[in-house]
Amino acid sequence: MPVSSDRNPTVPELLYLLHGDPIDLAEALSGMRGADVAEALRDLRPDAAAKVMAALPFDLAVQVFDEPELEGHRCEMIQHMGEKAAGPLIDAMSSDQQADLFRELPEKDRNRFLKLLDPGTRQSLSVLLQYPPETAGGIMTTEFVAVPNDWTVERTLQHISQVGRTKETVYAIYCLDPDQHTLVHVVSLRDLMLASDRSAPVGQIGNMRKPLCVSTRMDREEVARLISKYNLLAVPVVDEGGHILGIVTVDDVIDAIVREQTEDVQKFGGMEALDEPYTEIGFTKMIRKRAGWLMALFLSEMLTATAMQHFEGEIERAAVLAMFIPLVMSSGGNSGSQATSLIIRALALREVKLRDWWRIAIRELPTGLTLGAILGVIGFVRIELWQHLHLFDYGPHHLLLAMTVGFALVGIVGFGSLAGSMLPFVLKQVGFDPASASAPFVATLVDVTGLVIYFSVAFLILRDTLLR
Amino acid sequence: MPVSSDRNPTVPELLYLLHGDPIDLAEALSGMRGADVAEALRDLRPDAAAKVMAALPFDLAVQVFDEPELEGHRCEMIQHMGEKAAGPLIDAMSSDQQADLFRELPEKDRNRFLKLLDPGTRQSLSVLLQYPPETAGGIMTTEFVAVPNDWTVERTLQHISQVGRTKETVYAIYCLDPDQHTLVHVVSLRDLMLASDRSAPVGQIGNMRKPLCVSTRMDREEVARLISKYNLLAVPVVDEGGHILGIVTVDDVIDAIVREQTEDVQKFGGMEALDEPYTEIGFTKMIRKRAGWLMALFLSEMLTATAMQHFEGEIERAAVLAMFIPLVMSSGGNSGSQATSLIIRALALREVKLRDWWRIAIRELPTGLTLGAILGVIGFVRIELWQHLHLFDYGPHHLLLAMTVGFALVGIVGFGSLAGSMLPFVLKQVGFDPASASAPFVATLVDVTGLVIYFSVAFLILRDTLLR
Repeated sequence: MPVSSDRNPTVPELLYLLHGDPIDLAEALSGMRGADVAEALRDLRPDAAAKVMAALPFDLAVQVFDEPELEGHRCEMIQHMGEKAAGPLIDAMSSDQQADLFRELPEKDRNRFLKLLDPGTRQSLSVLLQYPPETAGGIMTTEFVAVPNDWTVERTLQHISQVGRTKETVYAIYCLDPDQHTLVHVVSLRDLMLASDRSAPVGQIGNMRKPLCVSTRMDREEVARLISKYNLLAVPVVDEGGHILGIVTVDDVIDAIVREQTEDVQKFGGMEALDEPYTEIGFTKMIRKRAGWLMALFLSEMLTATAMQHFEGEIERAAVLAMFIPLVMSSGGNSGSQATSLIIRALALREVKLRDWWRIAIRELPTGLTLGAILGVIGFVRIELWQHLHLFDYGPHHLLLAMTVGFALVGIVGFGSLAGSMLPFVLKQVGFDPASASAPFVATLVDVTGLVIYFSVAFLILRDTLLR
Repeated sequence: MPVSSDRNPTVPELLYLLHGDPIDLAEALSGMRGADVAEALRDLRPDAAAKVMAALPFDLAVQVFDEPELEGHRCEMIQHMGEKAAGPLIDAMSSDQQADLFRELPEKDRNRFLKLLDPGTRQSLSVLLQYPPETAGGIMTTEFVAVPNDWTVERTLQHISQVGRTKETVYAIYCLDPDQHTLVHVVSLRDLMLASDRSAPVGQIGNMRKPLCVSTRMDREEVARLISKYNLLAVPVVDEGGHILGIVTVDDVIDAIVREQTEDVQKFGGMEALDEPYTEIGFTKMIRKRAGWLMALFLSEMLTATAMQHFEGEIERAAVLAMFIPLVMSSGGNSGSQATSLIIRALALREVKLRDWWRIAIRELPTGLTLGAILGVIGFVRIELWQHLHLFDYGPHHLLLAMTVGFALVGIVGFGSLAGSMLPFVLKQVGFDPASASAPFVATLVDVTGLVIYFSVAFLILRDTLLR
């Protein structure tokens, strides 16, 4: 918990204050931070949330509305607020959040609220709305500080102190060619502050490397990687002619990273990404998101039933073999999912590249066989122990049965590790997101193959005895 | 790819330049960014990397050494660099990275390199090294701008332009009580720049809320959440008396988030977190990290073998039942892992709290039963279809068998969803990290229970026919 002390009112307290003296409510709220108010508003009904918004000081209200946390709630809130209150609020939001809000609005309301905006805002918004939300263009904001390259440090600092209030960040200053208006230089406010000669042109301050830029189409995850790698506070988004269109700031990028993380975990768990909080998604939508994958997996796991049909004879002759099916199958699945999660992550972090697949293969195979041998020994000991302690009678051929389970585990865990590590490469090669489907696919692949390996080993070891 | 154009030399090119004219090497390197040089150095041998470092301009060399990417490589590099070159470099590093470097150094070398440092650096370093690396104290840096509360805006701005070069960030200024030296106010450089009255005391500029602080013991993940929630560039770390000890900046936090993300994916895949890149870990270490979990899972999956022993009679009478064991088991596992991944993520994002468990339960049970019914119908149809198309003969009681599989799936998928969603709560309640073990535990739990459900349904439906 933060050491910081001013306690925020809880949702019930807010509801109580809502029906009391508006001044009490305003006072309770004014001490809160934007993110905390936003969090509280999520738990209120839209009409109550609209009332709270009305009680907030305007600056704080803008901050609250700028919180990405309110996504999915803002639309209903502005419907309840009325156009007169909503207009100035939307106008004052940062442009990237405005774009998000308008993306959420139903088609029919969009024009109504667009009309409330300042013509300048309206124009820049219509540009932002062209870009898909998961690209640099879709998460950028148009509020940045740009000055001609030949302005002096002094003039630039003065300019910042005049326009700074309305900018998303003033800590990176974008210097443009005075004629072409292309981005030629980026200087940090720190470097401007440290400049010994305040009459020098900004274009000659700071690091003279070509500025790092991204295109509007770059995936937001890629932008996040860039910002994190180079420890940037913001990265400029430029068009093909080199003109700066907007910037993506580090806080937007953190949101993007956390969102991708959620999607990855959900995809890893074998389902479509929910796109909205668990607590807010409807029953039918939840079923739809989950049933698709579950059915796909079920249909592919039916291959196990088909495989088992071939071994019906073996099971009829030696029902004892069936007892270890769940054990050997799950071991294959577990080793496969270990290998998959390792490789997915290594691919995501660019630790390994697509062309490295064979290096991984020659590493995973011995690893898998070693792990399989460890489990095989344990399995062997388990069967023999139960037999000798008279906990269960596996029949006269218990030693051969224990060997079957042991050797099958070596093969299955070895294959599981290899298949689990290779599948992400295959998926990536054919253009899929490796995170999205690897884990469940591996499970199915390893389950079917595991059965075949198990019964093949059983046939080899037991054909003259149990399976005669 | 960044639109930015200056191409970086590849590792072979670097190696070539290393043996040529030192001036060529220096020129090729000076155009590179710190993060890119660091990336290239990772692929070089430590002695070659040390040579490259020697060819870098000092400022860039410091930046390179400040890259967390070089973790695990820096130690060997400084051994090759020699004390004369390494001393000033380490001295100039940011304090959080210094601490990381000294944590990596073997005990015997620590004192040798400590002696090379400036007494002031040495002292602040010894403070930082006291804190565990995964806490706020362990990732904080001591290079921040602090001024007495009663300084004027003008004086503070001047102070920044004098000391700014050596600070991790100058964008947040920490204002101290002139007598107690406690942290009483935080003001952004932006607010200082925008202040209309440059003779006002800094303590009265910007937002007057009590500053948000964290304690040295706060987990770095929690610090990351705070910085991301409140869109901060840095958060101050204070002691119990309210004195500021250091700050954690947003770029350190991104690194922390990405690291936690990797750990979570690996734990989710059922293994210990590797703590180092996949490509760099040794064979035995890899086996150790993976074998532990795999063995634990194997031992618990042995319960399936024990469960199966109870059903040996059923399997002997109706081997056809064994054929669907992999199918029903895997469906339970898949639905369980869906539910688990949803809840783990919702817990991590604070969308649901521990006390909400019953709300999740009354939501997951109907969801699971519905999903089970969908799969059950598919399973039923599959068996009947194969029977009627003469693809396989399930015997005279095929209809009852199909019903068994169908109803078992309803129960198993329903139970899987419920168990999968409840286990993260249980683990969290008893103090475990829900991400770390939920997925594999769910698999085992659901596998064993799935078998029991399947054979119980089979007994109910088939006791007068197949299982007589």
